[in-house]
Amino acid sequence: MGFDTNARINAERLRATMDVSSGIGAKGPGLSRLALGDADKAMRDIFVGWCRDAGLEVSIDRMGSIFARRAGREDDLPALMIGSHLDTQENGGRFDGIVGVLAGLEVLRTLNDLGHVTRRPLCLVDWTNEEGGRFPPPMLASGCFVGAYDVDWAHGIVSTDDGTTLGEELARIGYLGDGAIDLAGVDAYLELHIEQGPELDHEGLDVGIVTNAATVYGFRMEFLGETAHAGTRPMALRRNALVAAARLATAVDDLGHAHAATGGMATTARVAAQPNKPGILSHTCEWIGDVRHPDAAAAAAMRDAVLAAAKAAAEAARCDLVIRDTWTWGGDIFSRDLATGARRVASELGYRHRDITSRAGHDAYFLAQARPTGMIFIPCRDGITHTLDEFTTDEAIEAGANVLLHTAVRWADRSGT
Amino acid sequence: MGFDTNARINAERLRATMDVSSGIGAKGPGLSRLALGDADKAMRDIFVGWCRDAGLEVSIDRMGSIFARRAGREDDLPALMIGSHLDTQENGGRFDGIVGVLAGLEVLRTLNDLGHVTRRPLCLVDWTNEEGGRFPPPMLASGCFVGAYDVDWAHGIVSTDDGTTLGEELARIGYLGDGAIDLAGVDAYLELHIEQGPELDHEGLDVGIVTNAATVYGFRMEFLGETAHAGTRPMALRRNALVAAARLATAVDDLGHAHAATGGMATTARVAAQPNKPGILSHTCEWIGDVRHPDAAAAAAMRDAVLAAAKAAAEAARCDLVIRDTWTWGGDIFSRDLATGARRVASELGYRHRDITSRAGHDAYFLAQARPTGMIFIPCRDGITHTLDEFTTDEAIEAGANVLLHTAVRWADRSGT
Repeated sequence: MGFDTNARINAERLRATMDVSSGIGAKGPGLSRLALGDADKAMRDIFVGWCRDAGLEVSIDRMGSIFARRAGREDDLPALMIGSHLDTQENGGRFDGIVGVLAGLEVLRTLNDLGHVTRRPLCLVDWTNEEGGRFPPPMLASGCFVGAYDVDWAHGIVSTDDGTTLGEELARIGYLGDGAIDLAGVDAYLELHIEQGPELDHEGLDVGIVTNAATVYGFRMEFLGETAHAGTRPMALRRNALVAAARLATAVDDLGHAHAATGGMATTARVAAQPNKPGILSHTCEWIGDVRHPDAAAAAAMRDAVLAAAKAAAEAARCDLVIRDTWTWGGDIFSRDLATGARRVASELGYRHRDITSRAGHDAYFLAQARPTGMIFIPCRDGITHTLDEFTTDEAIEAGANVLLHTAVRWADRSGT
Repeated sequence: MGFDTNARINAERLRATMDVSSGIGAKGPGLSRLALGDADKAMRDIFVGWCRDAGLEVSIDRMGSIFARRAGREDDLPALMIGSHLDTQENGGRFDGIVGVLAGLEVLRTLNDLGHVTRRPLCLVDWTNEEGGRFPPPMLASGCFVGAYDVDWAHGIVSTDDGTTLGEELARIGYLGDGAIDLAGVDAYLELHIEQGPELDHEGLDVGIVTNAATVYGFRMEFLGETAHAGTRPMALRRNALVAAARLATAVDDLGHAHAATGGMATTARVAAQPNKPGILSHTCEWIGDVRHPDAAAAAAMRDAVLAAAKAAAEAARCDLVIRDTWTWGGDIFSRDLATGARRVASELGYRHRDITSRAGHDAYFLAQARPTGMIFIPCRDGITHTLDEFTTDEAIEAGANVLLHTAVRWADRSGT
């Protein structure tokens, strides 16, 4: 029971599906659809409806991730999982993550149209809180899925917005499930995503086959000092936690520029002090940031430099330092077999492609810890992402969805166990 | 009609009055009674009741400051104004500002008990938003009173907490008045306050006669950058507004330490970035801070250094810099006559005293721009202030109130116009 190489997804239907998504949480030309907020709930409800209309078996796990399963001919075999995430940053785009989920849905709808049942089951997924915009760290639900994070711990993470916890918000929007699908049911994972860098766009390519991931080390730290009057507390006695965080942020920016020539990046993403008020010193300050480098050893050196800088910043400001959380992902993690399969499909379908390194974080990074994992990139205009202006073309999405279609079907139909 | 040198305030009544205040907005051993919040409204309502019970004529001005006037024998003469403020920082003490208002009330109650009517009227004041904790800059209402700030502009200041404006909050709590008292009705101003430094406490003194004020320059700035993905935006193209603010905060802390040996101080009080989220760069960041020095020329040099550092920080982070607001106060501003009067009273009453420089900001600084102004300090344990642990003794408050009583009565009773 072969699969016709000439089969193509329904580009018009996919465009219409994307258009619905673009209206939910719309903010200017982009989206503001933070994980577990009202817009995320609205999108989830619609997505679940689409999945059920396509005859898929929907289940929700304890992290609120949505799984939509299409039975295989040998339905006891583990499923090929495809998908990404439907949440965005506060000022996010219409494509980051969303393309991967909705093109995945279109792949399953196309197989329904063609009456093709793959040997292995297929399972479409929307991972909860990939962005980590309200509940750091990012890629939280996929991390829980593979056991890198503890679900109970994740439920207790406090929002950076409003003090609610992830578990409370899951219950509030009705997506605290009980997890019919687990890792044992997964054979491999394949994710389509916009590149979030300028390479494919500037080189005029249709598709990128992801073969490597920049290594990332992220940190959530807290400096503990002492509040006091800005006008009367002698400098030598001050313990202004905001100063400690500022010194770290300055050092981290210097570190990023020092590694920029070899592709390194270092970011201070969040500084949140208390009381953070005119006329007084702050007694606590949270600092969240990360370092990234395509070379794993260089990334590790940057990680060490951040930890040393945090210690020095705490000492300079006479504050205590608490490392609340650290995370890491990336490296040489992708399945050569899945990449080979996707590369062959791209060539056969006539798309311009090359191999590429992923720089952003993706749920695929966690899945790769446990299962063969592949990623397919499509261009993203000028590499602009995590802004309202993020953009890619309908044609790029169509190309990516067709590569996803054939790569997924061939993998799910392959012989062996 | 002389005034008996043996007259003393009713220490027990003053203590009971302070105790009521200590229960309104209580937070641990201190207070959280931010200007125009619900606790501030509750305190205002009680204070107005006390003033009316004491036969005082209460009026509210457009900034919500409360004036309670006690008629003089020659009631057309301008009044001697006494008072301070009843608002606190978010984590504030029970004494900062409050002692000045409630000891002022006790002075008027004592005069009622003794049946002494001063030649000039006396006017007790509670200045709105001295702390500036929600609505920077501090000392806002006293600044408006003397014409240093525009009232309409002040009404539009946005809260650092919740986005409401000062004008909206004044209206909400019912303290948007029409200003029966203005500067023309004021002869001079006298304020009792805790020192907010350790000198009187550590030297075992009862009272400080304020003869000088450290010069302060404050700033509210905003850095404007561009949001982008932390993992894909090349370092050279970044415009992370949070990095600009952090670089300024680091430079300002260095500046403070460089001037510490001569009594200089430099503070970053607030850094507030947007979106301030994991995984992305921030497009805007507010920075609020100040520099202070007992020597006016040194303070001016520190001011220039902050402005240069802000420009350099903006350039280093490729951001734009907007100076939203600046303020200054302090210097050789106090009335020698009022200081002489207070010093003589302290000696006659047998209190241990010396002259002292004020380091914190006070409403008196603005009044001093327009009228003869004096300040009387009492000790504050270890100089700790703007924290929940701020403390002074009942005996210290009693001593200060007695010096206030006699200094005020002699000034109000003096001959001439």
